[in-house]
Amino acid sequence: MFYHQKRLQYFTPPEKPDPVYAKKIQELIGGSFGEMTVMMQYLFQGWNCRGPAKYRDMLLDIGTEEIGHVEMLATMIAHLLDKAPIKMQEDGAKDPVVGAVMGGTNPRDAIAAAMNPQHGIVSGGGAMPADSVGFPWNGRFIVASGNLLADFRSNLHAESQGLMQAIRLYEMTDDRGVRDHLSFMIARDTMHQNQWLAAIEDLQSEGYEETVVPKIAYEYGKNEYAYQFWNHSEGEESAQGRWAKGPSMDGKGEFQYVANPQPIGPEPNPPQPDPRLHGTAKTPQASQAATGEPNIVERVVDVVDKITPGGQE
Amino acid sequence: MFYHQKRLQYFTPPEKPDPVYAKKIQELIGGSFGEMTVMMQYLFQGWNCRGPAKYRDMLLDIGTEEIGHVEMLATMIAHLLDKAPIKMQEDGAKDPVVGAVMGGTNPRDAIAAAMNPQHGIVSGGGAMPADSVGFPWNGRFIVASGNLLADFRSNLHAESQGLMQAIRLYEMTDDRGVRDHLSFMIARDTMHQNQWLAAIEDLQSEGYEETVVPKIAYEYGKNEYAYQFWNHSEGEESAQGRWAKGPSMDGKGEFQYVANPQPIGPEPNPPQPDPRLHGTAKTPQASQAATGEPNIVERVVDVVDKITPGGQE
Amino acid sequence: MFYHQKRLQYFTPPEKPDPVYAKKIQELIGGSFGEMTVMMQYLFQGWNCRGPAKYRDMLLDIGTEEIGHVEMLATMIAHLLDKAPIKMQEDGAKDPVVGAVMGGTNPRDAIAAAMNPQHGIVSGGGAMPADSVGFPWNGRFIVASGNLLADFRSNLHAESQGLMQAIRLYEMTDDRGVRDHLSFMIARDTMHQNQWLAAIEDLQSEGYEETVVPKIAYEYGKNEYAYQFWNHSEGEESAQGRWAKGPSMDGKGEFQYVANPQPIGPEPNPPQPDPRLHGTAKTPQASQAATGEPNIVERVVDVVDKITPGGQE
Amino acid sequence: MFYHQKRLQYFTPPEKPDPVYAKKIQELIGGSFGEMTVMMQYLFQGWNCRGPAKYRDMLLDIGTEEIGHVEMLATMIAHLLDKAPIKMQEDGAKDPVVGAVMGGTNPRDAIAAAMNPQHGIVSGGGAMPADSVGFPWNGRFIVASGNLLADFRSNLHAESQGLMQAIRLYEMTDDRGVRDHLSFMIARDTMHQNQWLAAIEDLQSEGYEETVVPKIAYEYGKNEYAYQFWNHSEGEESAQGRWAKGPSMDGKGEFQYVANPQPIGPEPNPPQPDPRLHGTAKTPQASQAATGEPNIVERVVDVVDKITPGGQE
Amino acid sequence: MFYHQKRLQYFTPPEKPDPVYAKKIQELIGGSFGEMTVMMQYLFQGWNCRGPAKYRDMLLDIGTEEIGHVEMLATMIAHLLDKAPIKMQEDGAKDPVVGAVMGGTNPRDAIAAAMNPQHGIVSGGGAMPADSVGFPWNGRFIVASGNLLADFRSNLHAESQGLMQAIRLYEMTDDRGVRDHLSFMIARDTMHQNQWLAAIEDLQSEGYEETVVPKIAYEYGKNEYAYQFWNHSEGEESAQGRWAKGPSMDGKGEFQYVANPQPIGPEPNPPQPDPRLHGTAKTPQASQAATGEPNIVERVVDVVDKITPGGQE
Amino acid sequence: MFYHQKRLQYFTPPEKPDPVYAKKIQELIGGSFGEMTVMMQYLFQGWNCRGPAKYRDMLLDIGTEEIGHVEMLATMIAHLLDKAPIKMQEDGAKDPVVGAVMGGTNPRDAIAAAMNPQHGIVSGGGAMPADSVGFPWNGRFIVASGNLLADFRSNLHAESQGLMQAIRLYEMTDDRGVRDHLSFMIARDTMHQNQWLAAIEDLQSEGYEETVVPKIAYEYGKNEYAYQFWNHSEGEESAQGRWAKGPSMDGKGEFQYVANPQPIGPEPNPPQPDPRLHGTAKTPQASQAATGEPNIVERVVDVVDKITPGGQE
Repeated sequence: MFYHQKRLQYFTPPEKPDPVYAKKIQELIGGSFGEMTVMMQYLFQGWNCRGPAKYRDMLLDIGTEEIGHVEMLATMIAHLLDKAPIKMQEDGAKDPVVGAVMGGTNPRDAIAAAMNPQHGIVSGGGAMPADSVGFPWNGRFIVASGNLLADFRSNLHAESQGLMQAIRLYEMTDDRGVRDHLSFMIARDTMHQNQWLAAIEDLQSEGYEETVVPKIAYEYGKNEYAYQFWNHSEGEESAQGRWAKGPSMDGKGEFQYVANPQPIGPEPNPPQPDPRLHGTAKTPQASQAATGEPNIVERVVDVVDKITPGGQE
Repeated sequence: MFYHQKRLQYFTPPEKPDPVYAKKIQELIGGSFGEMTVMMQYLFQGWNCRGPAKYRDMLLDIGTEEIGHVEMLATMIAHLLDKAPIKMQEDGAKDPVVGAVMGGTNPRDAIAAAMNPQHGIVSGGGAMPADSVGFPWNGRFIVASGNLLADFRSNLHAESQGLMQAIRLYEMTDDRGVRDHLSFMIARDTMHQNQWLAAIEDLQSEGYEETVVPKIAYEYGKNEYAYQFWNHSEGEESAQGRWAKGPSMDGKGEFQYVANPQPIGPEPNPPQPDPRLHGTAKTPQASQAATGEPNIVERVVDVVDKITPGGQE
Repeated sequence: MFYHQKRLQYFTPPEKPDPVYAKKIQELIGGSFGEMTVMMQYLFQGWNCRGPAKYRDMLLDIGTEEIGHVEMLATMIAHLLDKAPIKMQEDGAKDPVVGAVMGGTNPRDAIAAAMNPQHGIVSGGGAMPADSVGFPWNGRFIVASGNLLADFRSNLHAESQGLMQAIRLYEMTDDRGVRDHLSFMIARDTMHQNQWLAAIEDLQSEGYEETVVPKIAYEYGKNEYAYQFWNHSEGEESAQGRWAKGPSMDGKGEFQYVANPQPIGPEPNPPQPDPRLHGTAKTPQASQAATGEPNIVERVVDVVDKITPGGQE
Repeated sequence: MFYHQKRLQYFTPPEKPDPVYAKKIQELIGGSFGEMTVMMQYLFQGWNCRGPAKYRDMLLDIGTEEIGHVEMLATMIAHLLDKAPIKMQEDGAKDPVVGAVMGGTNPRDAIAAAMNPQHGIVSGGGAMPADSVGFPWNGRFIVASGNLLADFRSNLHAESQGLMQAIRLYEMTDDRGVRDHLSFMIARDTMHQNQWLAAIEDLQSEGYEETVVPKIAYEYGKNEYAYQFWNHSEGEESAQGRWAKGPSMDGKGEFQYVANPQPIGPEPNPPQPDPRLHGTAKTPQASQAATGEPNIVERVVDVVDKITPGGQE
Repeated sequence: MFYHQKRLQYFTPPEKPDPVYAKKIQELIGGSFGEMTVMMQYLFQGWNCRGPAKYRDMLLDIGTEEIGHVEMLATMIAHLLDKAPIKMQEDGAKDPVVGAVMGGTNPRDAIAAAMNPQHGIVSGGGAMPADSVGFPWNGRFIVASGNLLADFRSNLHAESQGLMQAIRLYEMTDDRGVRDHLSFMIARDTMHQNQWLAAIEDLQSEGYEETVVPKIAYEYGKNEYAYQFWNHSEGEESAQGRWAKGPSMDGKGEFQYVANPQPIGPEPNPPQPDPRLHGTAKTPQASQAATGEPNIVERVVDVVDKITPGGQE
Repeated sequence: MFYHQKRLQYFTPPEKPDPVYAKKIQELIGGSFGEMTVMMQYLFQGWNCRGPAKYRDMLLDIGTEEIGHVEMLATMIAHLLDKAPIKMQEDGAKDPVVGAVMGGTNPRDAIAAAMNPQHGIVSGGGAMPADSVGFPWNGRFIVASGNLLADFRSNLHAESQGLMQAIRLYEMTDDRGVRDHLSFMIARDTMHQNQWLAAIEDLQSEGYEETVVPKIAYEYGKNEYAYQFWNHSEGEESAQGRWAKGPSMDGKGEFQYVANPQPIGPEPNPPQPDPRLHGTAKTPQASQAATGEPNIVERVVDVVDKITPGGQE
């Protein structure tokens, strides 16, 4: 169960409105790596967690913090959209040339035209659960697999992309209010990258997981192919990396560089199509209904029915 | 530019068809962490790569390999869908009770009903670019940010989730053909987890990135908050983890556990809504058009227009 | 800012696992009218609210409660998925007929086949942010328009559809645990329907809104058409309803039944296409590049350029 | 079955083209609350209606009217896109500074850049089934539940949001043609809000439904929680509303304000994960295949198989 | 403007309900090539048509017919869902083994489990605007480009895939009512394939278009590559087709088979990344803020600002 | 299996960067008819092909070529985004009027505002798998039905729309580099339209398919309706086309123009709703649980259970 406190975790209002920047900063709310993603990802991981209490508790701590991050950004967007240009001006018509071509626009209108139109039409000046191009946040943005190592790596990736995006948005403005606000979020994302790295170390040092997840992979996999780098593209620059030679990261093998990889499998030879699906077969076929004879599938089905209890016979 | 070779990288046909398993294994083609995701992610990262040649070449090597993995799985699905039950049988009608309620179904029909219907209706017995519930693969499943550390972490996460799913699908069948086939893919995913861990090490040892990405975060962030764990949920089990005490993973701070976190920001106080958007304000408003008087925004706009070159005056 | 408490708002575990029911009850988490929808809708409405404190506070109260409802259902799904059938059994192969056709399935496998496959492959036995067919929750499911009457009507609609779905799911099981659990949620939804009806009354009695929202509609609309019912379909059964006669609900007009509605507008006559877009015009056109002469648009643009400062001349 | 008449229900062409406004007004065609939504929602409700003829007939009347509204707006967009700027001008190159940075753009190009690019590239100057940010209309925007009270509330909500958006778009232009056109649609939406309120009254006065839908909720719900307002957020401003005290809107209870709500349920305790899913359990686990011993699930399955007819034994 | 007539264009009720078939036949309503697609595609093409009246009228004829096809299928689905199994039975519990594992399911429940759950929970036994896996219809399924040849080819393709799917669904049932109903729709699709082939011939014989659309392609294209088949995959079986030799279909060239295609372009060499985006460059970079010196982009911008009117100086 | 070669199939860099054009040309990568669509469509058709080797080989040739087309465009976009304006300038603040309203924007910022924001924030200056409005490519854009005639028609349609879009984009720029680059792609699309027309001819001349696909349609359809044009809309302009008279395109019938089409079917009469779904029935219903008596469905189920082996009795 959850409780809400009125004050924001942190907040500095922008010095001045900026509806175009409001459009951009939506990426941090509803983008693939926005706060809705980390909020939902950590909460679902916490709710689905069946591991030790410290991990579950930690996931719910940070998931709950992230709800407040969405709140902070939603408040920021409300300020950025204040006094956004809504109404087209009569004076466009006074410039007959522009008016004739464009339907009454002036430079301010041009700027207004670059807003997310839904910030006016749909949300009436409020934040939306969407990214910087207006695409809605969706549930496929998150993962909660039940395996904490796989999930902590997902979390590290989400925080890495998310911090990158926050930095880029920081660079895109000189508004001291927005920058101060973002500087808090940047610090939290710095913590969260550290946190997931620490959590990965913790999980491995406690003996829950090893380098490769899940550890049963070694028992099921054809391990002779588990340390080969296949050079599928022209040139061998890729032979120069850590992944091409030396001991593998899991300490169980030696990286091997396959400079001229050859297929191991056969040519594909899928079975001929069921006539009732009317796919194209190797030889032209008369239309099934016309033949009056059972096709291969029907003959198999007949046999099946004869020996099945309650079958046709 | 690309070339195709007829033989498959690896392939073992299934011992027998299994249309329900065909539905499930679609997850490995078109799911969030399926082969289409890694193929597209590595190719776009390679195409967008402006870093050293060894990284670009390596990305295109593995991206090109993954195209072949989609091919292998598509071939597998064609075999699994062979002889899938298509036509409902007359004998359902012979069981008058079931017939009355269900419209002529028998147990084999029940199994057939669990197929992905589009495997019959849409693809005619072929693989589809969709996941195990039929949701289509889409471009938001991938990321290519231009920053290789952020992206290699994304790749590690994708391979971790993907290998987990391959293992689960391995457990869901006893078909020796399918298992043999999957065992090759499991080995390649094992390599790929190793590979991204190696690539991360390589990138850092070459001096391109540090622990936290991007490294400029320290210059922009409020670093006093960059090492604090905030305990937003009841209980302090989360204090027991590596993330709550000791040196931070980046070696630049000390983890600190904030047991009773308090908001730092103010209560939100967004500006009153523009009357022309007809949002609800703090006090009831007469309808704008009725007043006959310019509202606040209009008055601001008037001032603006008067002092703008080419304005209303 | 938010806090989490460990205990659930309410919970009764199911008497026994039921993976097929787990698939169905996902509708209440991630469907169009599931708990994620009301949670996000109320939180965004609260964050975007610029009206009186009592409405904002109320929105955040109920939005925060709904986070806990997602939590309750996620926990329920974890129990329902316990011991879900994962591994296909060898004994399918012992029934040679079924085995030949279906790839080794027995009745338990048939049931297993009806699970949401992602409950095994992706979430490892946990809840997902998706509906009962596996389609992900997305941000277009919610609205926060800034106008509280419009939004409270949206909330009433969401709670009405949501309660209907909870009742249907209640009917679909006899598990006493699930039913007890749902009976709490049904009571809360009953409250919430009452609540939004009360909030609508409150908003109108406080003078914020009238019957039709937004109230300025009367000033902008062609009111002669504002109370007419147009009978666009054969038969006049629709004349028998409250909407066809008597005073209109807003008290400002009289419903009027237009039995044989006729168009008021002209036939459409859209302008001829720009030749550079190569749409089909009324008369066949030579390919533009071939003519060597400027087309209509180019001639307009020429004029524009000549009189624009910095233009071509 | 349907028939089409050439003349539009109503139409006034715009005074002049305006491609940016064409982008915005797409919201009224393909947005969540656009004409495609009400058209499809009323048609599906009508087709699925099994209630009295007057409701079915009325739904098909208005659904059929709405097809014509999409037609009217599509025609409007064709006019607004006439002479839209398509070709970039050479003169951008004459401004070497702008040219160097931006690739040859001038102010008119800047305006052109704010168009929906698909209005040129994809539709060749025609309307699209998408909203103002280009996101496509989809079937999850509508509902037809079979219960008319739930659905009429959905219709009231859709018309309320839709009218709000039409008003906002009216404010965003001074084009007299567009405004005249919208004023007709505003009047129809005014009617439709009235209509759904009347239909709700009709349905209740005829005895089909009561205040809370579906009325069986009282029989299944834990009614002791059906009239409580839970104060999940700091502050008690929410105690001041109609929803916090007095008789409930359904006349069956008394609103009650719970100032300090406490959880009723236990801490969640989901079962330990199936080892074959490789989720993280409370204690570290050896990899399953390695143990050589059946795990818990396998032991259960063994028992099951032994007592199932046709089982392993 | 549109009118509705009560009787269906054609209809035969199913002999008996079949909820699983109801799920499948949704493909014909809301799938990529279902009736919603052709309805919307033809209506939007008609509304956007600026060509001769006969084409516009014809498009609106068939678009209006297709609305009625959605209606016919929606009615069919209502019948197929009649008496669908909703409530789980107590007797599952009587089979203790199955009960213990599966939560009280019997064979009828197994069949029920294969329904589209939303047919019960969401639509209450009615059709939905979605396909056979529950994925919603969306606006990206259609195209209306303004060019009638391109669009008539799209229509031919949609009718070809759609008829294929109708045939497959015909094969999947033995219900005489459903088959009779589908046989009417199959005939209409047969007409519609003929119709679009005729419309393509008509358009070309009237001189609107030639073989390749748009015909200006020859003026803009590098025609030396316009008739070459590039053999990008191993083997030369592809040399045996009509596309590899002989006169091209447009009569303007000769097909040419390029057996060993070689790249014409250079190696890609994208510019180094802007330091403010923190992408990985060819050489490791100090963090920008730390240098205290303007980076390359800033230096360019400085120059720009100095020579721009109203710039920094 | 696939191989990559470093050089691009063809490439000419743009003369100068143009971030707005970069946004537009994304349509050719990730739009409905972009290169990702044809690449994936041809590859899946090839992988699913069970017909003669020449078709399979040809599909994989062209599918493999198209991977390289995505690569070419991704490289183009990297160049177009070079030096894109990222940082907002201080000098906006120097224009106090604009600054007060817009938050510090100048004309260059206005242009920057029209970029796809994700080109900066998400991809760091690289191409994305999305269209010109930022909507992601998805798997529903393609089809591979197994029937080659249906699929070759889909391919012809995709190449027709795609070439149209390439031409429009060609017209939208004067950059000689971009135009040269596009002129190669235009030539390849010209080939591909020719190719699919040739492949259709080849398939029919080889006897695999006839005019209408699938050819069994004549056996299942009500052929008396297979050549009628129904005039559903006012006016008979549609009688003037090739589709309204003369022999049908398949040579098996005569087109017939039905000027006043009348419904053949009855009025719909769907069955009354199951009481447990709480839909609205023809007469008001007491709530089910209150009656204490089994409803119709329960009575049917009782009968069923009594005669089912293992039923309730």
